[in-house]
Amino acid sequence: MKLDKLVGERFKEKPSDCVIESHALMMRGGYMKDVAKGIYSQYMPLKRICRKIENIIREEMDAIDGQEVLFPVTLPASLWDESGRYESVGSELLRFSDRNKTKMILGMTHEEAAVQLVRDYAKSYNNYPFMIYQIQTKFRDEARPRAGLIRVREFTMKDAYSFHTSQEDLEAYYQVCYDAYNRIFARAGLPDVVTVASDSGMMGGSLSHEYMLLTPIGEDTIATCQECDYRANMEAADSIIENKKDAEDKTLTKTFTPNIHTIEEICEFLHSPLEKSCKAVVYQKNATDDYVVVFIRGDLDVNETKLTNFLGEEVHPAVITDDCGLNAGYIGPVNLKVAGDYTVIYDKSLQGTNNLSCGANEEEYHYTNLCMERDVPDAVYTDVAKIIENGICPACGKKAIRLSRGIEIGNIFQLGTKYTKSMNMQYLDAEGKSHYPIMGCYGIGVGRLAASVCELHHDDYGPVWPMSIAPWQVHLCCLRADDAEAKTYADNLYDELQKEHIEVIYDDRNVRPGVMFSDADLLGVPIRLVVSPRNMKESVVELSTRDKSIQDKIALNETVQTVKNLIAEMMKNLEA
Amino acid sequence: MKLDKLVGERFKEKPSDCVIESHALMMRGGYMKDVAKGIYSQYMPLKRICRKIENIIREEMDAIDGQEVLFPVTLPASLWDESGRYESVGSELLRFSDRNKTKMILGMTHEEAAVQLVRDYAKSYNNYPFMIYQIQTKFRDEARPRAGLIRVREFTMKDAYSFHTSQEDLEAYYQVCYDAYNRIFARAGLPDVVTVASDSGMMGGSLSHEYMLLTPIGEDTIATCQECDYRANMEAADSIIENKKDAEDKTLTKTFTPNIHTIEEICEFLHSPLEKSCKAVVYQKNATDDYVVVFIRGDLDVNETKLTNFLGEEVHPAVITDDCGLNAGYIGPVNLKVAGDYTVIYDKSLQGTNNLSCGANEEEYHYTNLCMERDVPDAVYTDVAKIIENGICPACGKKAIRLSRGIEIGNIFQLGTKYTKSMNMQYLDAEGKSHYPIMGCYGIGVGRLAASVCELHHDDYGPVWPMSIAPWQVHLCCLRADDAEAKTYADNLYDELQKEHIEVIYDDRNVRPGVMFSDADLLGVPIRLVVSPRNMKESVVELSTRDKSIQDKIALNETVQTVKNLIAEMMKNLEA
Repeated sequence: MKLDKLVGERFKEKPSDCVIESHALMMRGGYMKDVAKGIYSQYMPLKRICRKIENIIREEMDAIDGQEVLFPVTLPASLWDESGRYESVGSELLRFSDRNKTKMILGMTHEEAAVQLVRDYAKSYNNYPFMIYQIQTKFRDEARPRAGLIRVREFTMKDAYSFHTSQEDLEAYYQVCYDAYNRIFARAGLPDVVTVASDSGMMGGSLSHEYMLLTPIGEDTIATCQECDYRANMEAADSIIENKKDAEDKTLTKTFTPNIHTIEEICEFLHSPLEKSCKAVVYQKNATDDYVVVFIRGDLDVNETKLTNFLGEEVHPAVITDDCGLNAGYIGPVNLKVAGDYTVIYDKSLQGTNNLSCGANEEEYHYTNLCMERDVPDAVYTDVAKIIENGICPACGKKAIRLSRGIEIGNIFQLGTKYTKSMNMQYLDAEGKSHYPIMGCYGIGVGRLAASVCELHHDDYGPVWPMSIAPWQVHLCCLRADDAEAKTYADNLYDELQKEHIEVIYDDRNVRPGVMFSDADLLGVPIRLVVSPRNMKESVVELSTRDKSIQDKIALNETVQTVKNLIAEMMKNLEA
Repeated sequence: MKLDKLVGERFKEKPSDCVIESHALMMRGGYMKDVAKGIYSQYMPLKRICRKIENIIREEMDAIDGQEVLFPVTLPASLWDESGRYESVGSELLRFSDRNKTKMILGMTHEEAAVQLVRDYAKSYNNYPFMIYQIQTKFRDEARPRAGLIRVREFTMKDAYSFHTSQEDLEAYYQVCYDAYNRIFARAGLPDVVTVASDSGMMGGSLSHEYMLLTPIGEDTIATCQECDYRANMEAADSIIENKKDAEDKTLTKTFTPNIHTIEEICEFLHSPLEKSCKAVVYQKNATDDYVVVFIRGDLDVNETKLTNFLGEEVHPAVITDDCGLNAGYIGPVNLKVAGDYTVIYDKSLQGTNNLSCGANEEEYHYTNLCMERDVPDAVYTDVAKIIENGICPACGKKAIRLSRGIEIGNIFQLGTKYTKSMNMQYLDAEGKSHYPIMGCYGIGVGRLAASVCELHHDDYGPVWPMSIAPWQVHLCCLRADDAEAKTYADNLYDELQKEHIEVIYDDRNVRPGVMFSDADLLGVPIRLVVSPRNMKESVVELSTRDKSIQDKIALNETVQTVKNLIAEMMKNLEA
């Protein structure tokens, strides 16, 4: 490919709407273009990167006996009615009607389609186990698409579905997939991905893992124990709280607290620590707008995923209206009054505690010395708190939790029989008895993986693509293309490299070296060759790697072989 | 791949809803499954066939300097508003709204997306020409999906878009693409595809060609001249009629014709030929339901594509209501009365003719001796007739038109500046003057191509896949897998073939040879190897080809090499 015909704009300035580097560099390097919110077109360099990632995924899926299939992007709503998800999934599921007013959806995941494809086939235990996968476009109507390819609405995903006759068999295959995922990420240039236990969310099932690339720009928070191997997405991490209780229950006292509206202010006013307060956080149910009042220890935050799972429905931060009965800034568990149906939840962090400050449900008044057992005797306690830095590890019990940020680049779920049962897929065992098969599912987002690799491998001037997924293997620059000798040699080298099936992007434009090199930096191709009149005089070609680890001059007649060897070596380093 | 774990059902009976062989065989062979009307999931064999077709297309597109990109499946309506197609395209364009009520569509073709991707980049004549293409899922909300993969609603398509600074440059590239298409079809096993001039339809632009596989089951009709090289889709073929006129204009006479409602009946009643009649065909405009009355010679049919193009809007066959003024069965050009706005069209076949029979616009009455010039002096004539067998060739003028049926497996369009103008894409020429680039576009449906290959290459027992796109290259059968010697040899052969990167489907089930061979026939793999106890005694493996041209016994130690040579030879035959 000649660079002067490569479609796409490359430019210097970081676009103002890019908050992370991979997004900025991919916009600056002519990798992609906005079409709509969270929807992009891909130029050739990104398309090539994604295709190479897809091929790595395909090889590893085939190696663990995966059968590549293809499900439709558009699915009839009736299929999702069978599993109950047409109703249960929120507005990220894009629903529409076709010309005949038949209700349809855009596939955001394909469990139903997978069961539909195999349920008539896999009727005997002999057919099991098996795994099918596809690499296909998906649509998820995200409320807040952001960060370039990290959170989009339309994306290419590899999704795999395995079917088993026993939990043991699923677990054995789950491990096989787990290992295949580690190989995929290592081959794509991310050997240090960590796995964390995660919340199964709308997928259902019991056990699930996310593959996380740890990076400060990640949108997920991961809790890791410094003392044992516990790792979990914050959404899934149990919060273990050592609740402290004063020896003596003091008298509940109503206090005039003018102009005090937050739990921080009341604690400051009373010179008492945040741990000795009971904070109210108020939500409303999405479906009904009914209020949900969560009481939690003042220094902790509500984990909305746990809250949603506990309620079995989605919520949003409340709008406190004048007539709802709640006194914003003064809400507490004693004498709480709310108009209409409402739910009150007490976080476990309050269980057994005493002498807390809290709102008095009365304008400008707070209580001090709230004693949970005495003053709220009927409270039932639930864990809806976010795990905290230096918190207690749910696995080993030591105070050794560290929080870090990560990008989820893959996930694997043990689905159990959620879909096979609801969609009535059964097989006969050797004794002729009917059972529901047990499913696992396994996803990787292709574009998000590409962006994650860019996050980990870049410098100020552009991405540093690993050889395995780079858009091209060699970037050939001819400085002074108006010099006949240099140009002729570079043209021949371009042909020779291509004859050896080496992927070359060739820049023979009549532009300044600075322009040439900054374009090369933005394309991030691992090996750069520079042909120039000065080099010709020395009978050499300059060879350097994008990561700057190699900077060398190669005799003209050794160039092709040197490049071939280097490509092989760089590929081998990724197979480790 | 071992056959006993291949997901998909294979069965004997032809499904009742399959009207063509490729559909029936693909259902019977476990290639695909219905998900919704015109929407299928693909099992592994079909997915592999399609992937191989995609790779052939990709190689040929790359070889003519195509740059692979990716456009979204979901596009904002605003983009199609720019070109005017959001309004102008009918209900085959799937329109929907996202969660923010933004109007969107599912891409059925990507001219707008292509212009959007490149219009900020290609601002100088230096950037031209270039071609971008994608292989991506498309959705077209067909009113009548049919014939398996031939006419579906969701499909994978390669669509390419080229951009030029002159008509000459477009035409030169158009020829390059034309040749690439011929190579693609030949490599996929269809060397005898013909190209025909076609109607540009909603695409716009002037010149376009369809690639047709001639087959009786095709849904398109192609007009071919026996005397010259004229070929056209019937939708685009001009109808040239030699209009005959009697020497004498007879007197227009109203005749009582009880119980006669069709033009055939009146001609029979009057013992006059169909050519001496004027038939009325009535439509209504889709947008307004206004009537469109077409008068045409009684033996000819209306070409609805020509009619639609002439009107500039879509029509449907009319519903004749009691109060519309039309007398169904008695409609004629004299004293025609229609309620509301209406359009009357006279086909060229009536121009200058006389002494015709026609309806009298009065219940139970017809006219005889209608003379067009005398009785309908204001008529303006338009060609809206279908070309007929033995009709006059629009190119050479000889009566040598033959009609045949074909499947459209690709198309190429010269689009002109329809999209660049409406979407304001401009470049500066060497003198600094602004111009709109000229576009071409080029499509191939992947699944339809697979089905077309199956139509051409099958027998009663299954498809006969060409080596280039076969799901596997070798089908290895071990008869009597309970025989240790045979099984061990077959297992080793399976491993050895795979080590040579030969794609093998291996059937080692304990089933009768009949079951094994009929499954092999349905999978259509080009080379079959049979290992059996009897063959082991002779120290041979049976080798046969699916097309039955080779049936041989090969010495055990020569099997792998023989297979390798045969694969290479079969591939070579397709490159021709």
